[in-house]
Amino acid sequence: MESGHKAPMTARPGRSLSQTDRTRHRRLREQGPTDRAALDAVLAEGFLCHLGVMVDGTPLVVPTVYGADGSTLYVHGSVASRSLIASPGTDVCVTVTHVDGLVLARSVFEHGVNYRSAMVFGTPRPVTDPEEKLAGLRCLTEQAAPGQWDYARRPNRKELAATTLLALSLDEASVKVRTGPPDDGDGPDAALGLWAGVLPLHTTWGPPQADPLLPAGIAPPAHLTARAAGATRHG
Amino acid sequence: MESGHKAPMTARPGRSLSQTDRTRHRRLREQGPTDRAALDAVLAEGFLCHLGVMVDGTPLVVPTVYGADGSTLYVHGSVASRSLIASPGTDVCVTVTHVDGLVLARSVFEHGVNYRSAMVFGTPRPVTDPEEKLAGLRCLTEQAAPGQWDYARRPNRKELAATTLLALSLDEASVKVRTGPPDDGDGPDAALGLWAGVLPLHTTWGPPQADPLLPAGIAPPAHLTARAAGATRHG
Repeated sequence: MESGHKAPMTARPGRSLSQTDRTRHRRLREQGPTDRAALDAVLAEGFLCHLGVMVDGTPLVVPTVYGADGSTLYVHGSVASRSLIASPGTDVCVTVTHVDGLVLARSVFEHGVNYRSAMVFGTPRPVTDPEEKLAGLRCLTEQAAPGQWDYARRPNRKELAATTLLALSLDEASVKVRTGPPDDGDGPDAALGLWAGVLPLHTTWGPPQADPLLPAGIAPPAHLTARAAGATRHG
Repeated sequence: MESGHKAPMTARPGRSLSQTDRTRHRRLREQGPTDRAALDAVLAEGFLCHLGVMVDGTPLVVPTVYGADGSTLYVHGSVASRSLIASPGTDVCVTVTHVDGLVLARSVFEHGVNYRSAMVFGTPRPVTDPEEKLAGLRCLTEQAAPGQWDYARRPNRKELAATTLLALSLDEASVKVRTGPPDDGDGPDAALGLWAGVLPLHTTWGPPQADPLLPAGIAPPAHLTARAAGATRHG
């Protein structure tokens, strides 16, 4: 995260998942924890990523849904995937970010963001095998809406063929996390007598809103109402 | 947004802000509204963007804070900006996405996401003039934490010099929006008798959390407590 005005955010010890030129990047190395459990945790909490890919010589950053199964990240797409299928071997960067709050310091310079972010690098592989495609779509569906794969009508052969799915290995990835209060509480600015702390940001599900075309008498399934009752999940 | 399993999301009429190869992209053109007011609205509601840039031949997607003043997007950064300053003339794509809810259809294939997303394309310019840098930092600070620029200690000359700020014109941009219920309410799947609708996602500020190092008796300023009292803003 390039967050706030503080040039480098607080460095925290960590180790990279893999030492490549990309994950060895200075900012990535400075921040942690970058272990596999942290990566899985960040990916497990979201369902929306930003996929970066070169298209016609320009970077394109596309918001898209994803699913992660511990070793592979599945990405649904069309703009990016069309480009990627047209140019196999194209590298991408997939970033998932959860914003947890604003870090409000005594000085503007020390302002920042509490966040958890994962970056996954690699060359995605178009999923063509119908079995794997179905498993990948299940992963992706359950990541965004747990319970829906078993509840809704699953893709038929025609729909499966019309769906583009990409698989990206989680082997090359990096995690950055910033937590806690501002860092200027014991510096000279503490004498200014200003309030400082964190303004937390919460993401919550609201109650299910029925499709106006839904006939009367069809209640939302428990996996949806339970979620709205308090579970928090970041987009 | 590449969202859900439905290959193209519902096309809605709209016009591009500018007709370039990038914003004429098929998916971008298909969706709207892409007028300037819509762009300003999407940008005004967030403070976190994902900046995509090529670094050493690989796309890098970096979460970073931004400010938008109606004509310019200011981005704070170091990884990306170091690369950009080292290679002036490098194109970037800055994407801001607000997730509003999950679209839960009768069929998995029609599942999707309600969202608003803006993409800004261009070649960022490092801001070096101290006056403009101060104005840009003010824009960026007020976007994330309105009221803090006047409350906290502003950057001094040394801090200003240590801060990297990039300016990107809003002239070449694109907006995509998806709202409303699923699209299979009047199709054959309606006969399945399944619940369908939207699970809304809300982003809210919690009450300010004081820095543990804060002396007793310093209350959070009104612009922070008021925000926590109910204002919703996406990260």
